[in-house]
Amino acid sequence: MDTLTRRMTRAAVWSADGIRIRDVELPTPGPGELLVRVDLATVCGSDLHTVSGRRPAPSPSILGHEAVGHVAAAGPGAEREIGERIVWSVTATCGRCGRCRRGFTAKCEQVRKVGHEAFTGDWPLSGGYADHILLPAGVTTVTVPETVPDAVAAPAGCATATVMAVLEAAGAMAGRRVLICGAGMLGVTAAGACAEQGAEVLISDPHPQRQHIAARFGATPDPGGRVDIALDFSGSPDAVTGALARVDLGGRLVLAGSVTPGPAIALDPEAVVRGWLTITGVHNYEPRHLIRAVEFLTRTTRTLPWPDLVAEPVELAAIGTVLQPLPRAVLRASIAP
Amino acid sequence: MDTLTRRMTRAAVWSADGIRIRDVELPTPGPGELLVRVDLATVCGSDLHTVSGRRPAPSPSILGHEAVGHVAAAGPGAEREIGERIVWSVTATCGRCGRCRRGFTAKCEQVRKVGHEAFTGDWPLSGGYADHILLPAGVTTVTVPETVPDAVAAPAGCATATVMAVLEAAGAMAGRRVLICGAGMLGVTAAGACAEQGAEVLISDPHPQRQHIAARFGATPDPGGRVDIALDFSGSPDAVTGALARVDLGGRLVLAGSVTPGPAIALDPEAVVRGWLTITGVHNYEPRHLIRAVEFLTRTTRTLPWPDLVAEPVELAAIGTVLQPLPRAVLRASIAP
Repeated sequence: MDTLTRRMTRAAVWSADGIRIRDVELPTPGPGELLVRVDLATVCGSDLHTVSGRRPAPSPSILGHEAVGHVAAAGPGAEREIGERIVWSVTATCGRCGRCRRGFTAKCEQVRKVGHEAFTGDWPLSGGYADHILLPAGVTTVTVPETVPDAVAAPAGCATATVMAVLEAAGAMAGRRVLICGAGMLGVTAAGACAEQGAEVLISDPHPQRQHIAARFGATPDPGGRVDIALDFSGSPDAVTGALARVDLGGRLVLAGSVTPGPAIALDPEAVVRGWLTITGVHNYEPRHLIRAVEFLTRTTRTLPWPDLVAEPVELAAIGTVLQPLPRAVLRASIAP
Repeated sequence: MDTLTRRMTRAAVWSADGIRIRDVELPTPGPGELLVRVDLATVCGSDLHTVSGRRPAPSPSILGHEAVGHVAAAGPGAEREIGERIVWSVTATCGRCGRCRRGFTAKCEQVRKVGHEAFTGDWPLSGGYADHILLPAGVTTVTVPETVPDAVAAPAGCATATVMAVLEAAGAMAGRRVLICGAGMLGVTAAGACAEQGAEVLISDPHPQRQHIAARFGATPDPGGRVDIALDFSGSPDAVTGALARVDLGGRLVLAGSVTPGPAIALDPEAVVRGWLTITGVHNYEPRHLIRAVEFLTRTTRTLPWPDLVAEPVELAAIGTVLQPLPRAVLRASIAP
């Protein structure tokens, strides 16, 4: 591989001054580590928050935590071999701390995150907006069948896997009436996943164009009324309050969108008790959810219009043109190094 | 049985004017119905709320929904035989409506409740504060081993079964740190049940005497700090708010005490999301929980000081002396017809 021969790669290094394409020396993967050639990275909304200054992040750093690629080099004891096509988790976890042992590896006490680490630290090539990324031993990887296009596979590591965690928290879907608040990448993915499991899916989003996208994944516009399950990806306190009021007896509200500080909502304990209601939060996901994400995308590659969600890729050098809010006809920009 | 020969029984009929012992004609049980001779009834706190005017109820009525007795007569197709010693559920359910079919029989669209029906209606002998009670076909009954004394068995149908539902909602207990708010009959029962399942149990109650009782069921006074699970039986908004703030990553708060209107609490959606927190409500219980309640009481009859929770019984004619707040050394008054 030519870049390996040269021992250099290119990366989009973001800092408060902007984004600059830099040549970076290629590391030799250590024990359990993988060096991956990035084939396509999609742009998660949280990166847009980061570059707009609304989300704190180490700077300078290489952003990008949704991508697909091929293993270019594998350290001793690594679980993948050169040439395997993979997606990977956001979190690099120790596997030994109390939280990891309790099954909350996403909250590992020593967690490091793909696309969230300082370029000047000991893991400079941590992000997907680069020709190569280095994956430490604690990152989960899943192989991707060749039938799944890059644009379908890339979001697995953030959007799709998080949706799988939300669905696990939501419980059985078959025959349930499910309200989804927010028709971004996660909401639309959830619509497809809930519909696949036999739910009646209602979508609520202020933008008609996004409702149209969700409709193609099996959702119908929310007509109001009681629901068995509500999934919030909007993070809007009003949406959360409204969804909670609509959850029927024994129902469940899963919160996934409320990831920034905001006002408290009013919760009536008596309504929770008498309604046997459950409110549960999901943040990031566990390795099993990434596996399910790839399985889900593989099953639905031909039946759902996944590629339509992702804009045509721009080259890495043009990354600045896509690290900004998207037109609403698509849900993800993408970058092909 | 002499009362059957006479075809009359005695009942404590409560109305806004007070409680009066009345002779009531004994009904002949219809299809699926049971006529039960009450051996002992315990006095649930909610009956104290009713007689003090803080809780709406049909009037006149026969109160009492925690009791144990023997089957005195069985209608055609009834599931029990004459002479069986049983406890029974609070709810009489249709088994056919949408809620029953979804597994929420306690919220049956046509639910009727033991000890909560009008004396002037079609089910006058609905309460346990009487020599006999009539159990409709939709009431769940569970036989009680002779090893379990009346004072231990009687609370099964309300306090103990509700605690079993709360424990189901709380999830696995072994090795967990569990905070219990409120050391009344339910809180103390929960302490015993959580401790039996291997939890570390912390009890929070403003009354030291109640904390002492809970200590005999395996709880230690709450020293503060993080907990994996919190169970609220107090219904206090401050207790609920305080408990929620202490639930650790991935933990669960089960609300059971908030059964009267009260102020809303402030819920931070971001804290729920980032903490993978779950808040869930439990109201009444399902048939399986009554079965588990009897199993639990049977297992622990000799190992936990259950009889100490219940005051010496008074005769039915003296019921007025115990339908009032108890001294704090016990958690239940009781009535032996």
